[in-house]
Amino acid sequence: MRTGSPLLRLSFGTGSSPTCQRRVALPPGAIPLLGFRAPAMAPPPSSEQPDAAAPGAGAISRVLIVMAMEKEAMPLVNKFKLVEAPARESIFPKGAPWTRFYGIYKDLHLDLVMPGKDAVFGVDSVGTVSAALVTYASIQALKPDLIINAGTAGGFKAKGASVKDVFLASDVAFHDRRIPIPVFDMYGIGARKTFAAPNILNELNFKLGKLSTGDSLDMSPQDEEAILSNDATIKDMEGAAVAYVADMFSTPAIFVKAVTDIVDGDKPTAEEFLNNLISVTAALDVAVTKLVDFICGKRISDL
Amino acid sequence: MRTGSPLLRLSFGTGSSPTCQRRVALPPGAIPLLGFRAPAMAPPPSSEQPDAAAPGAGAISRVLIVMAMEKEAMPLVNKFKLVEAPARESIFPKGAPWTRFYGIYKDLHLDLVMPGKDAVFGVDSVGTVSAALVTYASIQALKPDLIINAGTAGGFKAKGASVKDVFLASDVAFHDRRIPIPVFDMYGIGARKTFAAPNILNELNFKLGKLSTGDSLDMSPQDEEAILSNDATIKDMEGAAVAYVADMFSTPAIFVKAVTDIVDGDKPTAEEFLNNLISVTAALDVAVTKLVDFICGKRISDL
Repeated sequence: MRTGSPLLRLSFGTGSSPTCQRRVALPPGAIPLLGFRAPAMAPPPSSEQPDAAAPGAGAISRVLIVMAMEKEAMPLVNKFKLVEAPARESIFPKGAPWTRFYGIYKDLHLDLVMPGKDAVFGVDSVGTVSAALVTYASIQALKPDLIINAGTAGGFKAKGASVKDVFLASDVAFHDRRIPIPVFDMYGIGARKTFAAPNILNELNFKLGKLSTGDSLDMSPQDEEAILSNDATIKDMEGAAVAYVADMFSTPAIFVKAVTDIVDGDKPTAEEFLNNLISVTAALDVAVTKLVDFICGKRISDL
Repeated sequence: MRTGSPLLRLSFGTGSSPTCQRRVALPPGAIPLLGFRAPAMAPPPSSEQPDAAAPGAGAISRVLIVMAMEKEAMPLVNKFKLVEAPARESIFPKGAPWTRFYGIYKDLHLDLVMPGKDAVFGVDSVGTVSAALVTYASIQALKPDLIINAGTAGGFKAKGASVKDVFLASDVAFHDRRIPIPVFDMYGIGARKTFAAPNILNELNFKLGKLSTGDSLDMSPQDEEAILSNDATIKDMEGAAVAYVADMFSTPAIFVKAVTDIVDGDKPTAEEFLNNLISVTAALDVAVTKLVDFICGKRISDL
């Protein structure tokens, strides 16, 4: 895998190269330095990004990776040689704990954002509210052509999931928003098909499954009933919220989830999750790198 | 109650009048018309609002009311003679269903925002994700001095709540974010004290109670256990999410919740909620109007 060589010749390109090797482009606001890029200012609005037009209009230029946990994200930050945007030049308002790493990988502007550490408790700000907020703020500031929500998930062995499996979500829904009033019930579940990417599926050998999202790591009987009703193979804490915001702004989004624990297995979820986090993150990183390599030089309609 | 007379003399005032009767101010972007205000453009950023400085610096100038349901909000929109910001001049990005009504009530710039109707299902976008998003976008665009999150709630009779009671929340927490990993568990619950407003409590005779927030209208046994652990008297679907975002940007927030249904009573929650929604909304409106009248001309430190 090619992980982004130092940038010598730089241009504000639109990423139309089919090979994804011929040209590299500097992110808006970056100063070209030999082998190193430092941000000069917050990126300009999308009007300066010719490729951020209607999906399918040109090669994908700007990819936003949304991840919830630092431990999941840092290997990818290193692999793609992304640099952290310093607080004083943040695209996010003061007070928000959200973090952003960015850089160029082949022809792609990559932004990897996280909800960051909770100001009070110091842990990763997991869950739907934080994921929705950072996704929203990132879409507004960066106008990505494509979102990849990558992370770990619980899997159901009854639906064919094993630890270290990497899934692409075909559908997302919530399992902990029960509103037993007609129509509100459907809104609460919020089921939606994700952006269809048949070529990614065919080429990259991900498993395909439905993803159910809730704000708890564990699973109550009510959650379980809803997850069954959602026909889900995997369970996470952010996906459906990211999908909700991405859909709001018509941004195609892909959900890549690696299984850390078997929800319908014998081991306690929290223990299994923590034990497998590092090794499964490695599998996730390989999958996301393959995915980004595949995306490079392609149009949305090629996925 | 005085509900805002036609504006004859207008100025971009800072609302320092102690009586809240002597002067009215035009919202940024509004064209002065005899007895009618029409928006001319989206409001300018906060730098043009001298009172949007540190809490306690001057009289409260800009109040943001966040409500989840149109039926709860429209009586207040009418009472305060607010006008809807047209889509073409929205402070919110295209695609977001969020709605904003605004105007002048006595000395106050009032903005009432809602998460709006879900694009797919057409119902009010209730719950934590939507509430957090619209609160975030509104804080960024409007820089309010104070947030009022007003709405209906379930109440616990075991803790002294009755239908039509209006509560001020002393504390907020989540009851459906169970993450059984040390520290993450505390983050999930997200308990926080709200902005203390002893003078509001003393003067306006609201009840005081702790508020627990979750994305379900019903209550699972796990929710119940968490609500008990949160020592909550009232239960809603947005409060703790609004508090989370308000705290992120150090914006004082007050939570006014009127009880539509008794959670630990005999009647099914959804049925009781729908039956009481209109009459309890009237009680909520009276309470919010009293509150806004009280706030008018005061400093944050006077509350």
